[in-house]
Amino acid sequence: MKKQLKIVKIGGNVINDSAQLDAFVHDFAKLDSLKVLVHGGGRKATEIADSLGLEPKMIGGRRVTDEANLEIVTMVYAGLLNKKIVAKLQNSDCNALGLSGADANLIQAHKRIVKDIDYGFAGDIDLVEGKTIGLFLNGGLVPVFSAITHDKKGQLLNTNADTIAAELAKELSHDFEVELVYCFEKNGVLQQVEDDDSVIQQIDKNKYELLKNSGVIAEGMLPKMENCFDALQGGVHKVHIGNPALVSDMNLKHTTLML
Amino acid sequence: MKKQLKIVKIGGNVINDSAQLDAFVHDFAKLDSLKVLVHGGGRKATEIADSLGLEPKMIGGRRVTDEANLEIVTMVYAGLLNKKIVAKLQNSDCNALGLSGADANLIQAHKRIVKDIDYGFAGDIDLVEGKTIGLFLNGGLVPVFSAITHDKKGQLLNTNADTIAAELAKELSHDFEVELVYCFEKNGVLQQVEDDDSVIQQIDKNKYELLKNSGVIAEGMLPKMENCFDALQGGVHKVHIGNPALVSDMNLKHTTLML
Repeated sequence: MKKQLKIVKIGGNVINDSAQLDAFVHDFAKLDSLKVLVHGGGRKATEIADSLGLEPKMIGGRRVTDEANLEIVTMVYAGLLNKKIVAKLQNSDCNALGLSGADANLIQAHKRIVKDIDYGFAGDIDLVEGKTIGLFLNGGLVPVFSAITHDKKGQLLNTNADTIAAELAKELSHDFEVELVYCFEKNGVLQQVEDDDSVIQQIDKNKYELLKNSGVIAEGMLPKMENCFDALQGGVHKVHIGNPALVSDMNLKHTTLML
Repeated sequence: MKKQLKIVKIGGNVINDSAQLDAFVHDFAKLDSLKVLVHGGGRKATEIADSLGLEPKMIGGRRVTDEANLEIVTMVYAGLLNKKIVAKLQNSDCNALGLSGADANLIQAHKRIVKDIDYGFAGDIDLVEGKTIGLFLNGGLVPVFSAITHDKKGQLLNTNADTIAAELAKELSHDFEVELVYCFEKNGVLQQVEDDDSVIQQIDKNKYELLKNSGVIAEGMLPKMENCFDALQGGVHKVHIGNPALVSDMNLKHTTLML
């Protein structure tokens, strides 16, 4: 029987708020299955870019990464945030190992092909080294991924953290029974965007099409949902979307995705 | 018989010069023993601090680390430089794994006790997790350490890279036959500081005392030499000091330390 593995993704909302981050770290450290954390960026990269007089550019909800911005996200995501989170987890007796995709060649990507838009140094994932991650997990370590990958030719790349979580989940499903938990600022996918209680508790592929066509699911949620269904199709056991407190109590109202 | 392990430390002189860094990475990747890289900081942290309007403070050759400067060195050392070096090594087919001392609790330290001078968030090392580093080495990985540690209570600490290299060498000497190689901007310890050919090829503890008393070895070299003898006393097989080209050719003129 495969061992259970939880892959949890947190975003800027948790990272920007130090009380919320401490609470999350405390809950995540207590999870008693094997586990992996993937974290996004948050406000700090923008603050540093502002202080250095750089203007961050966004297209379609994704940061356009020129060379100067790549240096900043590498510093902030793989350096400051990753090591702060690792140090906090260590304080909670969780043996965290901070990683980028360049480390041990764990996540190899290529620079996104330019079609209409040049996203700059944005990486699309080609390969996840599941065996090495398995070695870490079986050695009692808790991998903590920042959203930086590389192309194996010496180039670092900025990569969407939701996609990293989904690709890790798919690859690790070969050796583990994987549950993927996306934590964000809402309680789940909402029927009415202003009503945080209107959580849609189960969404399958058919319902997703209906919700998309009726406009209930739109904008930033679309790529997130695509990642979820992609993960399920790739063999991931379960996918959940909800707020960070989900990590300590899976009975909290949230959205569960299924094929 | 113990397996051979080389621990190589490079400083700012290599990191600041991109051609020199590329040459070093190429040579280091080709080393066919087990190996560990420890890297210092270089100019970039000071540049970022300047851009953000922070003034770096130095006392006795060591950076005084307030909270804002700790954030910067964490970003630059553990993020930007560490991941750039890892990506370059991966390009040279060296399976590098970038690390800080917080990761997997590999290097635990405490905030330096304030006597005459308050060095701020500077870490003095208490413990190295040799078993976990051994697991990485035996798994075919090449650990690459930035000079950031932690106190296991959630606090990151800025730590001297020479000392990290010496402490790693001592701890790993339990399981490996360790050679420690300090690369810096000179060809070795020099009899006349302006003459790069005046390398003193062998220094033992007695000769060190003589060189110190006569003022040949002074200032920045003193803590470096103390680290070397400390490593030898702690069971390290050999310690070498020279320029970065030593890594590809140990027959180059350089200084070898012995007890």
